[in-house]
Amino acid sequence: MRAPLWAAMAAVLFVGSAVAAPRETRIPQAAIDAAAELRERALASDLGYKITESLTTQVGPRLAGSEADARAVAWAQAKFRELGFDKVWLEPVTFPKWERRSEHAQVLGANAQPLTLTALGGSPAGTVEGEVARFADLAALEAVPAGSLAGKIAFVDFAMPRAKDGAGYGPGGRVRSRGPSAAIRAGASGFLMRSAGTDSHRMPHTGITRFDDGLKPIPSAALSAPDAAQLSRLAALGPTRVRVALDCGWDGEATSHNVIGEIRGKSKPDEVVIIGGHLDSWDLGTGAIDDGAGVGLTMAAAKLIGQSKLRPARTIRVIAFANEEQGLYGGKAYAAKHAADVAKHQIGAESDFGAGRIYAYSSSAPDYAKTADAQIAQALAPLGIEHTPGKGGPGPDISPFAAGGLAWARLAQDGTDYFDYHHTPDDTLDKIDPKALAQNVAAYAVFAYLAASADGDFGSAAKKVTPPEE
Amino acid sequence: MRAPLWAAMAAVLFVGSAVAAPRETRIPQAAIDAAAELRERALASDLGYKITESLTTQVGPRLAGSEADARAVAWAQAKFRELGFDKVWLEPVTFPKWERRSEHAQVLGANAQPLTLTALGGSPAGTVEGEVARFADLAALEAVPAGSLAGKIAFVDFAMPRAKDGAGYGPGGRVRSRGPSAAIRAGASGFLMRSAGTDSHRMPHTGITRFDDGLKPIPSAALSAPDAAQLSRLAALGPTRVRVALDCGWDGEATSHNVIGEIRGKSKPDEVVIIGGHLDSWDLGTGAIDDGAGVGLTMAAAKLIGQSKLRPARTIRVIAFANEEQGLYGGKAYAAKHAADVAKHQIGAESDFGAGRIYAYSSSAPDYAKTADAQIAQALAPLGIEHTPGKGGPGPDISPFAAGGLAWARLAQDGTDYFDYHHTPDDTLDKIDPKALAQNVAAYAVFAYLAASADGDFGSAAKKVTPPEE
Repeated sequence: MRAPLWAAMAAVLFVGSAVAAPRETRIPQAAIDAAAELRERALASDLGYKITESLTTQVGPRLAGSEADARAVAWAQAKFRELGFDKVWLEPVTFPKWERRSEHAQVLGANAQPLTLTALGGSPAGTVEGEVARFADLAALEAVPAGSLAGKIAFVDFAMPRAKDGAGYGPGGRVRSRGPSAAIRAGASGFLMRSAGTDSHRMPHTGITRFDDGLKPIPSAALSAPDAAQLSRLAALGPTRVRVALDCGWDGEATSHNVIGEIRGKSKPDEVVIIGGHLDSWDLGTGAIDDGAGVGLTMAAAKLIGQSKLRPARTIRVIAFANEEQGLYGGKAYAAKHAADVAKHQIGAESDFGAGRIYAYSSSAPDYAKTADAQIAQALAPLGIEHTPGKGGPGPDISPFAAGGLAWARLAQDGTDYFDYHHTPDDTLDKIDPKALAQNVAAYAVFAYLAASADGDFGSAAKKVTPPEE
Repeated sequence: MRAPLWAAMAAVLFVGSAVAAPRETRIPQAAIDAAAELRERALASDLGYKITESLTTQVGPRLAGSEADARAVAWAQAKFRELGFDKVWLEPVTFPKWERRSEHAQVLGANAQPLTLTALGGSPAGTVEGEVARFADLAALEAVPAGSLAGKIAFVDFAMPRAKDGAGYGPGGRVRSRGPSAAIRAGASGFLMRSAGTDSHRMPHTGITRFDDGLKPIPSAALSAPDAAQLSRLAALGPTRVRVALDCGWDGEATSHNVIGEIRGKSKPDEVVIIGGHLDSWDLGTGAIDDGAGVGLTMAAAKLIGQSKLRPARTIRVIAFANEEQGLYGGKAYAAKHAADVAKHQIGAESDFGAGRIYAYSSSAPDYAKTADAQIAQALAPLGIEHTPGKGGPGPDISPFAAGGLAWARLAQDGTDYFDYHHTPDDTLDKIDPKALAQNVAAYAVFAYLAASADGDFGSAAKKVTPPEE
């Protein structure tokens, strides 16, 4: 939100100086006091957990475009209403629909045995059989001559490293996104990878892949870590043939919805702080840490803000985004629909990295908002959250809008264990620590409350629009 | 082995007394010295791990009576030979064959979602649909009036407690063995249970069940812990219908084999110390902790004994038992076949409780063998093994023979984590700590070496035979 000319003039008059006062965004003390009360109230509440439990239990897995996804939309709408949000609505999101029907694999021959794998999202159906060509990492696969893997099944056995901030998902995820195309270029008939995960359970990790233009997609799947190790041991003993049978694929278009609920602001209800998570999940688990938690904790944070004695000036808008998993469709749709209103978005933060404790806060606040940014950080400090200016970036679903000019904040979660469960059947409610989730609710509530209460903005401005002269 | 009359007379002459000396089993110092060397050699060896790796990698899952089970028999025979055992042979074991083909379950209706489960061994095939009747434990199910669950699916949601010695498997396993019959008596059309396990992963635990005589078996399966929790939450919200579709069942008889290898004793080769594990596994995992480890570590222990400078007096016989999982068929067959030779069996010990460190030693040694028993315990002490006289009992496969008079020893493994993986897809090689396995090999090697070197016996004697007069 940019300050209009008259406000700047008023400021000049107020400070009684001939030079325009530097614009400074600040949070009033009354709001800071109210946020401290809110923080303690949130820590003592199990609302975030209860909402997450409700979604993951009553809907369970909710692959974008599925019947269960539609039930999740209905659930979110009903939950916002039940929680007393002031306004609840849907915004349609359309995308190609991908389905998983069945998946099997086995080692053939003298060491015959089944393998546990899962199709990568976007993989075509198909049954392929061939000798395994193992590569230690993506670079090794990308280095083989074109056509040299004809009749073979490429297998990248890269073990993603564990990291608190999830940094290992960079190289791990790249195997998934670029490996299939590299395999096709090399002439392979199928693609296998060690799951992009950090666990050692018989749990394959799915996730979206893509195929470069002009390439004919091949069946592509991820093995669980123990199966990848097993296949590597077998391949080391001698030529090893496998059969991979996937029944899955694209099937037309589907329309789901971003589900949006608002707690109305007191004095500037048209300006909004956006928080949220994504409503869809992969089909294997019940989408608890990815991203039932993100939906549950932001809904709870807004609800608790609504119960504060002092309502913030601006509106808190919670967005349960559609189809994050297959390409940020909900986030892109929101950014496109609200592009003209970017300056009315005070700031945004998305929770989509599990349910671990938040350990760091940062934002895109420009210099003139550093005071407010520091005030938020100070209010978060009692939650064990460090201020780390300049670190990180926006959550996935708000990143398209951030690219369009949205100011963003990052409430970084401890993701040490996140990739043990991410995109697996094991992403279930029991993986969430209710106390850690309450800390998340407290952090989002404090952040959103203070940002919504600030005098001044955090720099949201449409990027392609020439800034108005003042 | 009982001392013949002339030996007793010689002892009398030797001690130069008119009163018969009390019989005392003792281990010569030279053997104790050799065992100390053997212990260190075993700790430094990865042979047990390598053998376990070979079995679990090259054969993988090996359900009794399956094609893979036959490959496991061939593997064991070849491995004994490759390791240079002096004698290798097979003893046939025949049993009913049970197969798992497919298994699916789902919640029906407004909260529709898939459930992860696995058929209990021995379950019939069948598709049943009905409202879930949840019980907190077996006693609650057993208490309902006959016929009161008509048209329903009984569900026992008992969470087995974790324990170092596996004590929780008593009540946990009872739900599996007695629950289905209780469900039938109550009129249920299907039986579900929370897996007898201690993990919280999406891993159902299979295991054999049985149906009381005169009852018509019903489809019976175990849910993973997260699925059991989910189903309980759903059932708490209101009537919950599920469909359970199992394709599995008995299919005639199969013959597998106990595979036996021997390291010949120097002076009393006809007398044997038996050690071993079971060769079969459930079909879900690769049978690493249950019981590839038991086979691998006892094979390695015997091989290392064979490499000692001083061979023990008696033979070390390693038995890879057939079909333990479905009813101790290999153990019973061995006991029946060798019943007349029980006194030639110095003592026996089986490893079938995973691959955790051994923390306690005990045996059935009678009073006159307490000295040797204490000598063994002393030689095990540097491995962190406590002497716990009177504790525990024989391993499953030697228990039928122990009932017939075999002296037994127990090398108790730390089973704290055993039931996280037991009978699940997650029973794979990566769950074995090579150092812990080497400690097991050292313990079995020391125990078997010393028992085989003792002057005197440990009390093995056919129980139904009147003891000969001396």
